[in-house]
Amino acid sequence: MHWARWGDPAEAKPLPEDARALVDAFVGTREVVTARPSEVRLTEPLDGSLVAELAGIVGADHVRTDRDTRLHRTRGKSTPDLLRLRAGDGTDSPDAVVRPGSHDEVVAVVDWAVRRHVAVVPFGGGTSVVGGLVARRDGFAGVVSLDLARLDRLVEVDEESMTAVLEAGLRGPHAEALLGAHGLTLGHFPQSFEFATIGGFAATRSSGQSSAGYGRFDAMVVGLTVATPQGTLDLGRAPATAAGPDLRQLVLGSEGAFGVVTSVRVRVRRLPELEVYDGWRFTSFPEACIAMRTLAQSGLLPTVLRLSDETETMVNLASPDDVGASSADGGCLMVVGHEGTRENVDARRSATGAVLARLGGTDLGQEPGRAWAAGRFHGPYLRDSLLDAGVLVETLETTTFWSNLAGLYVRVQEALADSLDGALVLCHVSHVYETGASLYFTVAAKEADDPVAQWLAAKAAASDAIVAGGGSITHHHAVGRDHLPWLTAEIGPVGVEILRAVKERLDPTGVLNPGVLVP
Amino acid sequence: MHWARWGDPAEAKPLPEDARALVDAFVGTREVVTARPSEVRLTEPLDGSLVAELAGIVGADHVRTDRDTRLHRTRGKSTPDLLRLRAGDGTDSPDAVVRPGSHDEVVAVVDWAVRRHVAVVPFGGGTSVVGGLVARRDGFAGVVSLDLARLDRLVEVDEESMTAVLEAGLRGPHAEALLGAHGLTLGHFPQSFEFATIGGFAATRSSGQSSAGYGRFDAMVVGLTVATPQGTLDLGRAPATAAGPDLRQLVLGSEGAFGVVTSVRVRVRRLPELEVYDGWRFTSFPEACIAMRTLAQSGLLPTVLRLSDETETMVNLASPDDVGASSADGGCLMVVGHEGTRENVDARRSATGAVLARLGGTDLGQEPGRAWAAGRFHGPYLRDSLLDAGVLVETLETTTFWSNLAGLYVRVQEALADSLDGALVLCHVSHVYETGASLYFTVAAKEADDPVAQWLAAKAAASDAIVAGGGSITHHHAVGRDHLPWLTAEIGPVGVEILRAVKERLDPTGVLNPGVLVP
Repeated sequence: MHWARWGDPAEAKPLPEDARALVDAFVGTREVVTARPSEVRLTEPLDGSLVAELAGIVGADHVRTDRDTRLHRTRGKSTPDLLRLRAGDGTDSPDAVVRPGSHDEVVAVVDWAVRRHVAVVPFGGGTSVVGGLVARRDGFAGVVSLDLARLDRLVEVDEESMTAVLEAGLRGPHAEALLGAHGLTLGHFPQSFEFATIGGFAATRSSGQSSAGYGRFDAMVVGLTVATPQGTLDLGRAPATAAGPDLRQLVLGSEGAFGVVTSVRVRVRRLPELEVYDGWRFTSFPEACIAMRTLAQSGLLPTVLRLSDETETMVNLASPDDVGASSADGGCLMVVGHEGTRENVDARRSATGAVLARLGGTDLGQEPGRAWAAGRFHGPYLRDSLLDAGVLVETLETTTFWSNLAGLYVRVQEALADSLDGALVLCHVSHVYETGASLYFTVAAKEADDPVAQWLAAKAAASDAIVAGGGSITHHHAVGRDHLPWLTAEIGPVGVEILRAVKERLDPTGVLNPGVLVP
Repeated sequence: MHWARWGDPAEAKPLPEDARALVDAFVGTREVVTARPSEVRLTEPLDGSLVAELAGIVGADHVRTDRDTRLHRTRGKSTPDLLRLRAGDGTDSPDAVVRPGSHDEVVAVVDWAVRRHVAVVPFGGGTSVVGGLVARRDGFAGVVSLDLARLDRLVEVDEESMTAVLEAGLRGPHAEALLGAHGLTLGHFPQSFEFATIGGFAATRSSGQSSAGYGRFDAMVVGLTVATPQGTLDLGRAPATAAGPDLRQLVLGSEGAFGVVTSVRVRVRRLPELEVYDGWRFTSFPEACIAMRTLAQSGLLPTVLRLSDETETMVNLASPDDVGASSADGGCLMVVGHEGTRENVDARRSATGAVLARLGGTDLGQEPGRAWAAGRFHGPYLRDSLLDAGVLVETLETTTFWSNLAGLYVRVQEALADSLDGALVLCHVSHVYETGASLYFTVAAKEADDPVAQWLAAKAAASDAIVAGGGSITHHHAVGRDHLPWLTAEIGPVGVEILRAVKERLDPTGVLNPGVLVP
């Protein structure tokens, strides 16, 4: 990944003409200056004697303190993260990067960190957008990024149980390629898919674009292996049990604060024979939400189900490669994707289509679905192009029960519009359950002189609106440091005490990703 | 419920002729004597000043110390529980029974218990079969049964989100009746359905006979309210979130050791228009298991899916009212039930039937399914009739991934047969997942002179076999006190430390259901 942008630098594109016209019309651009890598201020490298100790555990090749290695593991990929780096502020950099090669080496590094009181930040794809990679530094002898990239094996495939054990450092495409060789798929495709890792998916309760069909990542996990300062935690002897609380669900979403996930056993499925993504048009967002809810509550969920509101449809954000090139039919675009055997896809597609048509939908054929699928991982590249043009762009998300969805939608929109003068606020529903759904907002506004402060104020206003509106502070982005101020409202003071109790028992000296998750 | 038998005394039946013939042929009977209620030794009633304090919280009508009230809340309904009571041993009785009328009164009772160091055992239907109602008494000023029967309201129905808030003391049929008035159902029908409560389902991770279609109880819960010594814990702002670990899944299965569940928000469904239960015959248990697995892994799970092994099929245990009256066709009986709209049932039944026929199944029509449905809650009554005849009968269950199921099945059978000379060991699969399934064993043997010790030895042998065989110590019966010795093997020492940390933080003086769940 680029140090201060999303993704592969070779994939970066200038702002498309249509998008520039849109920005000129609605938001406005301004000149921005980006620091060179050599200009970025980093922390001091880790003390040499500590580096030597780490080298004794993982080998000298796998401990790095050079600027470039540390710069590439500095913060995550939220807009404030990028803006700070672009402004030359790398003061949250790790002091060293260590790359253990096995679970046992992770255990040994964690033990070492406890002994030396060094903070440890587990690092997978580096795609956090909630400050999940920014450790508190106070009182620690240093901050080490624990890069899991070398834990990249498919350890086991059990085609009878349809499970696979994947190591934590496997990136999405690599995991899919390894499973694909067995005719299998995990089916987890979040926007970060190309860079994010299995361990990161688990640690943050990631949810992918095919969650309607394949489920959230937390629903795919049947077992976990975790390195904690108290030793190894191995969970998952069965799909489900009544042997007390489900501790797997305590590790999922623990963001490296309780331990380092080193491998997971996941449920896998057969690779689909066929993938068909259709576009449907509805005249209004509420009407289309009813259609989605009807599908979810009738047991008719397709594999992919995504609905853009009127504004997002207007700017064509469902297809980031063609933003601004709207078909101008108005209304709301729904993408409805089916994957599976041909027979299964045909049957489900026909049943789903009948419901959507009955509830006011117009079948747009496969072109909008194809465009969405082609651009499904490109949104973050577009953000970089917009940031280059001086447009502040960021996303945030929430979730609630169906009866509260419309009210929450309005409330968050208003909070963002009030905070960011003249902002364009877009929204889509990307994850649907029987009892509720998610809301994913994209915001674009003209950059102020201090765009970080500008965004933090807007984010705070939106987060306050989410809490007041009864939503969850995050559907799939996790807590990190950015959502921490709102977590107590979400789980209450007793819930916070539970997190603290587990944190203090497993990590009594607090070296694991200090500052995230636990208020 | 009867004090020393299952269920409604009016429903008790003498041992059917066919069953008696079966017992005579395979197991043998013996004379047994049962104590009269007045002969049962109970603990001393709670100290009068403490009773007066409780009366100050809930009203004098709702604190009882009379023998009958306490006797009826002594232990649960495992075979050892019943045998001990039948032998006149009621030494695990509560010293008083308190019936708070609201969440706030539960909070007040818990606070009082902490101040007075009185152990509190939450009591729903009293149907635990794992010693979940047997508190450790050491060091406490008394043991109080906290009966939730007065928390019996349907608090809220949200037909848009398809959720309902149910209070913890609602028994299964009452909850279904209240929901049924809105055309809704929870769809949770464990064998204990007629007596067990919503709070108990949550506290023990119950799983019902329709789990293939409606899911486990832990999958139905979207929110929980819990009274803890640290105050009220309120969880569930959305169907699913990434706001840290899912703490709902830490409360589910916590067995009253972390707090008292006072209400849950559950996902509900429309009452089915149609319920069709078919019987299918397979020549062997392994062949039929492959068919079940194929359904689960093809997205074709029916609402009910249950498979008896050859021995259970032979004795006809799937229809407890007709045990021994086997159709004598041999092979294995599978019950395949579909519920929903007529159109939906027709489509799914046809798709399921095609798979079962292709994989060697013979369609037996609806008669075996009807017989199963008619007797689905009667198994425990049959146990009482058998205990009356001096036959030791008990059940135990486990779960694992598909690839381990056949091996675990053999291992547990062998352990039971080795421990109980001449025992009849029956088994069925009652809960099926994409990645695995449960195994539910029923054992019948001639009672020894000390049948409790006889069973505890067999249970220990089976539990050791389960652990060694890679299964979970319980699929849906919970931990209680009976499974506690095997929990460390299940979740490991780090997992145990997590439970202890939560227990000690929420209940530092340990008054909540002492002795259960936490090793």
